Amino acid sequence: MAHVSRKRSRKAGLPPGTPMHIGEPRENAVTMTAFSYTASTLKETELSQSTDCQAVLNGLAGTHWIRVQGIHDVKPLEQLAAFYKIHPLVLEDIVNTEQRPKFEDYSDYIFVVLKQIGWQGTPPQLRIEQISLILGSHFVLSFQEHSDPIFQAVQKRLQNNKGPLRMRGVDYLIYAFVDAVVDHYFAVLEAVGDEIEELEEALISIPDQNCLHRLHRSKQDMIVLRKSIWPLREVISHLERGESSLIQDKTRVYFRDVHDHTVQIIETLETYRDMLSNMLDIYLTNLSLKLNETMKVMAMIATLFIPLTLIAGIYGMNFKHMPELEWEWGYPMVLLFMGLCAGGLMMYFRKKKWI
Amino acid sequence: MAHVSRKRSRKAGLPPGTPMHIGEPRENAVTMTAFSYTASTLKETELSQSTDCQAVLNGLAGTHWIRVQGIHDVKPLEQLAAFYKIHPLVLEDIVNTEQRPKFEDYSDYIFVVLKQIGWQGTPPQLRIEQISLILGSHFVLSFQEHSDPIFQAVQKRLQNNKGPLRMRGVDYLIYAFVDAVVDHYFAVLEAVGDEIEELEEALISIPDQNCLHRLHRSKQDMIVLRKSIWPLREVISHLERGESSLIQDKTRVYFRDVHDHTVQIIETLETYRDMLSNMLDIYLTNLSLKLNETMKVMAMIATLFIPLTLIAGIYGMNFKHMPELEWEWGYPMVLLFMGLCAGGLMMYFRKKKWI
Amino acid sequence: MAHVSRKRSRKAGLPPGTPMHIGEPRENAVTMTAFSYTASTLKETELSQSTDCQAVLNGLAGTHWIRVQGIHDVKPLEQLAAFYKIHPLVLEDIVNTEQRPKFEDYSDYIFVVLKQIGWQGTPPQLRIEQISLILGSHFVLSFQEHSDPIFQAVQKRLQNNKGPLRMRGVDYLIYAFVDAVVDHYFAVLEAVGDEIEELEEALISIPDQNCLHRLHRSKQDMIVLRKSIWPLREVISHLERGESSLIQDKTRVYFRDVHDHTVQIIETLETYRDMLSNMLDIYLTNLSLKLNETMKVMAMIATLFIPLTLIAGIYGMNFKHMPELEWEWGYPMVLLFMGLCAGGLMMYFRKKKWI
Amino acid sequence: MAHVSRKRSRKAGLPPGTPMHIGEPRENAVTMTAFSYTASTLKETELSQSTDCQAVLNGLAGTHWIRVQGIHDVKPLEQLAAFYKIHPLVLEDIVNTEQRPKFEDYSDYIFVVLKQIGWQGTPPQLRIEQISLILGSHFVLSFQEHSDPIFQAVQKRLQNNKGPLRMRGVDYLIYAFVDAVVDHYFAVLEAVGDEIEELEEALISIPDQNCLHRLHRSKQDMIVLRKSIWPLREVISHLERGESSLIQDKTRVYFRDVHDHTVQIIETLETYRDMLSNMLDIYLTNLSLKLNETMKVMAMIATLFIPLTLIAGIYGMNFKHMPELEWEWGYPMVLLFMGLCAGGLMMYFRKKKWI
Amino acid sequence: MAHVSRKRSRKAGLPPGTPMHIGEPRENAVTMTAFSYTASTLKETELSQSTDCQAVLNGLAGTHWIRVQGIHDVKPLEQLAAFYKIHPLVLEDIVNTEQRPKFEDYSDYIFVVLKQIGWQGTPPQLRIEQISLILGSHFVLSFQEHSDPIFQAVQKRLQNNKGPLRMRGVDYLIYAFVDAVVDHYFAVLEAVGDEIEELEEALISIPDQNCLHRLHRSKQDMIVLRKSIWPLREVISHLERGESSLIQDKTRVYFRDVHDHTVQIIETLETYRDMLSNMLDIYLTNLSLKLNETMKVMAMIATLFIPLTLIAGIYGMNFKHMPELEWEWGYPMVLLFMGLCAGGLMMYFRKKKWI
Repeated sequence: MAHVSRKRSRKAGLPPGTPMHIGEPRENAVTMTAFSYTASTLKETELSQSTDCQAVLNGLAGTHWIRVQGIHDVKPLEQLAAFYKIHPLVLEDIVNTEQRPKFEDYSDYIFVVLKQIGWQGTPPQLRIEQISLILGSHFVLSFQEHSDPIFQAVQKRLQNNKGPLRMRGVDYLIYAFVDAVVDHYFAVLEAVGDEIEELEEALISIPDQNCLHRLHRSKQDMIVLRKSIWPLREVISHLERGESSLIQDKTRVYFRDVHDHTVQIIETLETYRDMLSNMLDIYLTNLSLKLNETMKVMAMIATLFIPLTLIAGIYGMNFKHMPELEWEWGYPMVLLFMGLCAGGLMMYFRKKKWI
Repeated sequence: MAHVSRKRSRKAGLPPGTPMHIGEPRENAVTMTAFSYTASTLKETELSQSTDCQAVLNGLAGTHWIRVQGIHDVKPLEQLAAFYKIHPLVLEDIVNTEQRPKFEDYSDYIFVVLKQIGWQGTPPQLRIEQISLILGSHFVLSFQEHSDPIFQAVQKRLQNNKGPLRMRGVDYLIYAFVDAVVDHYFAVLEAVGDEIEELEEALISIPDQNCLHRLHRSKQDMIVLRKSIWPLREVISHLERGESSLIQDKTRVYFRDVHDHTVQIIETLETYRDMLSNMLDIYLTNLSLKLNETMKVMAMIATLFIPLTLIAGIYGMNFKHMPELEWEWGYPMVLLFMGLCAGGLMMYFRKKKWI
Repeated sequence: MAHVSRKRSRKAGLPPGTPMHIGEPRENAVTMTAFSYTASTLKETELSQSTDCQAVLNGLAGTHWIRVQGIHDVKPLEQLAAFYKIHPLVLEDIVNTEQRPKFEDYSDYIFVVLKQIGWQGTPPQLRIEQISLILGSHFVLSFQEHSDPIFQAVQKRLQNNKGPLRMRGVDYLIYAFVDAVVDHYFAVLEAVGDEIEELEEALISIPDQNCLHRLHRSKQDMIVLRKSIWPLREVISHLERGESSLIQDKTRVYFRDVHDHTVQIIETLETYRDMLSNMLDIYLTNLSLKLNETMKVMAMIATLFIPLTLIAGIYGMNFKHMPELEWEWGYPMVLLFMGLCAGGLMMYFRKKKWI
Repeated sequence: MAHVSRKRSRKAGLPPGTPMHIGEPRENAVTMTAFSYTASTLKETELSQSTDCQAVLNGLAGTHWIRVQGIHDVKPLEQLAAFYKIHPLVLEDIVNTEQRPKFEDYSDYIFVVLKQIGWQGTPPQLRIEQISLILGSHFVLSFQEHSDPIFQAVQKRLQNNKGPLRMRGVDYLIYAFVDAVVDHYFAVLEAVGDEIEELEEALISIPDQNCLHRLHRSKQDMIVLRKSIWPLREVISHLERGESSLIQDKTRVYFRDVHDHTVQIIETLETYRDMLSNMLDIYLTNLSLKLNETMKVMAMIATLFIPLTLIAGIYGMNFKHMPELEWEWGYPMVLLFMGLCAGGLMMYFRKKKWI
Repeated sequence: MAHVSRKRSRKAGLPPGTPMHIGEPRENAVTMTAFSYTASTLKETELSQSTDCQAVLNGLAGTHWIRVQGIHDVKPLEQLAAFYKIHPLVLEDIVNTEQRPKFEDYSDYIFVVLKQIGWQGTPPQLRIEQISLILGSHFVLSFQEHSDPIFQAVQKRLQNNKGPLRMRGVDYLIYAFVDAVVDHYFAVLEAVGDEIEELEEALISIPDQNCLHRLHRSKQDMIVLRKSIWPLREVISHLERGESSLIQDKTRVYFRDVHDHTVQIIETLETYRDMLSNMLDIYLTNLSLKLNETMKVMAMIATLFIPLTLIAGIYGMNFKHMPELEWEWGYPMVLLFMGLCAGGLMMYFRKKKWI
């Protein structure tokens, strides 16, 4: 199961605004890359932690994107936050990977938290990663836990000058990131959809414990996905409504498109949830049906043979004086009687519609 | 099961606004027909892909409807979009058949996505087809996946000049399309209703595995239908409210009528969902009831005969010294004792209200 | 079961606004009666289909009520509609008995659809009939499927000049009709309530298949009732709010009263739904409890007697060399051993709290 | 079970505004008492039905409260209503004890309906009584079905001049009544809470039919309570918002307090509902678990002994030519074989984790 | 189980505004400490009950916080309330520990009720404690049931002048308290999350009664937690919106942060609820699956051996004239026949896919 809540309690008691990484511990270094670009040029600068970060940032001309990979080391992030005058509570939220997707407007900049979802390991388990974005008037800061390839495609389009990325402002860059994250959800949902179809067929043919286990896993996964995706609608709705002057009017139509995708994802999610509940209900009823059939067969066998066994038992008793045993036709008559008993019971079963 | 999500993931990573057909692959060619009409005249022009599309479109006088059948070939659609200045995101949505029903107002034109639902194959399965409509000031564009006969009736009324179709503006034409789609839902729901009635009777008389399977199928179908039909209400509500100047006031009353039908369809859908849930609950309880009865019969048989069998077994033992065996009345006394045991148990059962 | 959806699909493909009767076919003729009245006078005119309808209608002085019984013959209704300038979509809705309760304000007149609910046949089944009302500035048109006595009481009060019916305007007449329909729901709910109480007692004492069948029937009925009654609240809410100038201010307090009754009916309906669900849950659990008890008894019997039967079987074997058979105290010792076994098992059962 | 709906149908067909007592028939007489008071004086007058009611009412100086106990006799109530110019629909609602809690503002006076809830009989059953209050500019009318002691405390505080009752206006008196009714709900909920705790322990230790019956009763009670208490929130919300000039601003803070209590009661009610549902689910699962254990024991016994019994049966056959029977070690070998069979099965059970 | 409702009914009948402690009885004394501080100074004064409370309070300069531990003695609280002109209803709410979390704006001061939640005893049970806060223009009053260490951290930061506590106004102090309470919820939820993970594994491996008991406990706990935490969102929402002039604008961003945490807690809570429901469903289905398997094994054993036992019984009968017994190959033929029966049944089972 994807962990729903990581050890957040370590923070309890600290003064608010104290940035402290909450999440799985990491070992690889934090890397920061600055992309400053115009319609025709693109400059890429590595911001190593040792170099004077401030100097480099001061040197960045015009529109730029600072890409941060790894948020477990708070130091360099604090330098960045200081340069861009980011509120301490924002920094605290960036390094605390337990945030829910959210949109916060600090008038000078917009702070957006998203959840990137993927599969990991065998059997595949949900992995949820937090992505934080800060949109200023001429800059974008992006923060990721890993060096995931989620922004790779956007980076390439920027480097190769494909599409209108460089022509448009930083709000369009933010849109590109959000779109990349949301598009990735479709792949996750497809995997879930395939699993549901497989499960559905398995439940009908061989309803074993493994099926039930997979069904359980899928249902728990849906709950976790729901928790990550539902708040997203509101986040994108804020971006779409364009309340902030940082989002240009002509970019809003793109956010409307991504909002539409989010609603589609949520509806598909709900549809899957309903389908899984449905499947569990049917599965339980199917088990009950099979138990009924098993018991009917067993009850018939028992009802048919137990009385006959008693009769055989009676004539197996060793009493001295049992006149029937002496009769010449005793044995065939008993067999006949047994046959009649069996026949009568069969007719009773047929009347009760058991056969 | 109707596929809830088709391979949308192929698109992940492409820049937004790249039109790419998402849906089942098709082989037949895309056909485009232009109908330009006034109250008294109607001209029909085939827009073959080879001819100069632009020239023909430029030549269309006044009110016209371009009917596009097949959306798997993006080329001709791009020509059309370019001529009518359709936003790339709209074109992307038209060819992506995974859209949810939606209404988008681009001030110059209105973009509407609907889902047409039908039955296909044996046993009949739900088939969902996407229909996209664009309403401009003097033109309507319609896009379908197949050459379905859904717009045939409207086309005939236009050709035969029946009803007020030609007299009124293009907004009435849009209404005619929406009405045709919504009216078709009633037929789908009737089929569902008939299946529910059949199922209900079957569940009472012969509750077998097949019933359960059909019940499951119907429940999953309802989930899929719900996903396609629910958003429709909002779409038609937008059309009815007449926020856009492209919808005339006197057409609004017709959209109110079709909105009413949509609400009726949704309520019937919810009613069917409730009924199916109800039927499953009752079915499960019925199974439990039958199991109880079976087990009661079996418990009685076992309780009645097993002790008697033991008695018979005891007197079937081959001990040398078993005084009872020698008694002259041993055998009848044992039979009598067995009868008393059975009678006593019967009375116990009657006390426990098992008989 | 009350049919949820009748054959509406026959209409698919027809131009909108084509009136066509949808509902069960009828044979008796359509009767139309006109009541024109002032505070002191009342004139009753039969509008036979052969007479010149228009002439009679033109001759009606002041306030009047046209009562139409039977809507399966569209002809006379079209004459009526033409005279009062009723929109074709309204006429279409009147003859289509599949409408949901609704309120539509056409500024010149108000169109209201209600559902009258009753019991029919043995065992009683729900029968839902559509009642359509049109309120103009000085006239009321009422349409019923049958010649049901639902408006009889109102008609008598009008004829006998009891109550303020004649003194007040036609909006009060509409109120009288709505009130009559809503009051009738209480009788229907009482019958449901009585059935629930009966069922509740039956489930506790003799939980047989018949109970389950009745429970199922009641639950399905509740779903159908819910579908007919829920939209009514909104309808009456429109009437109460008095947005139309056709409803006088002093009549609004009466509509508030009937709105209150509707809410009460809906709440009672929901209460019954909850109660029935509750009863089914309890019933299922009760079955499970009884099964448990049955199985415990059976398991005890089996566990007690089966080992003893084996012992008896062993000493019933015909081996030549079985020393125990020769022992003088063999038989009593075996009986003693059997007794000890049984006693030990009884103690085990007591420890497991089975007895 | 508290009756959810009493015989309201008797009223169907009567003109609206006809007061008619709906509820359980009563025998004791209607008593009416008038309390007229200022900050320092209090006069109590019995309004017997025979005296001239009007004269007494005319004689009442300033602020006064008319307390009516018993509403089954419509006559005296009509006199009262006539004097205070109460709308006929209000009087109709007062005597019809099937009302839901409601607030109605008739500008000259406010009409409030509440439900008082108590326990009655052994085992205690819910008893719901209707309390109607009318607040005028300088008078309060209160109507009760019985002579319940619910207003006794308020009456005493008024008589003994304790608290600010006499100092403040009639709106504070209304508050005192509402507060008394709502405070009483806490006692009812406590009884429910105690029953739930008892039931919870019983379900864990001895889950018998009686438990199930009590659980059912509690769940049905919760449904009835819910129906009576939910609408109360809206009623008090109307009083708190102080839309009417009859409620003074400084009294609003008191209604806010009682509104708060109502929300607390509703939340507790919902919590209890959830707990009971939860308990039923657990109970059902517990039964299933126990059935499983019983069946496992029984299956083991059967599987262990039935094959052994067959072996014993085979060697109990009376065939002339059965070589094993002649063998000297036949008997011990058969016993050994039986032991091996039993041992093997035991190992199989252990592998399947049944033991 | 945490008690949902304590003995509130003792209060019924008392005039409103009478403070009376409702909650578990306590023995330790009420302690009151006053902290008056500026940016550079902090004075701590113990307000013993014997000293003249008023004098001390009058002597407090500027911003100060009165910390009250223990609310079971109403006397000293009344003195405090009198000094700060707190409304009697507020005092009544402070000492009644059955309040739901709420926010009340009395314009001169804000009254906030929170619930602090913790674990207590072995096995750990939920303990819910009420915390009341009053925020005036230059003072904060805090009320706790116990001397819990929940405010200890805040007190230390105040004493050590760490963080901006002393620099900012009393509204920031209130924020610090609310934040401390909300942060503590994360620890509670983590414990629940751990229990759920443990339970999930236990349910899959060893589904015994203990598991079910723990599952039940967790579900009931979730219901209680939900009741305490849900209303909190609204409370903090009031604080965040800053409707009162007592909350400064620059403090609002902090309340937004804590509001965000509350939403996160509520979503986690709902996620856990869904997961637990899911687990119970799966558990029940799992039991059903296991029962099915058990019964299938047992039915096979019974069906296989019972007929064979009958055959053995028949040839164990002692009839004089049983020709088969005399046959030389009788015994092997019977064994062969038994083997054929068993084989046939095995094939039947295989056909029915039971093996």
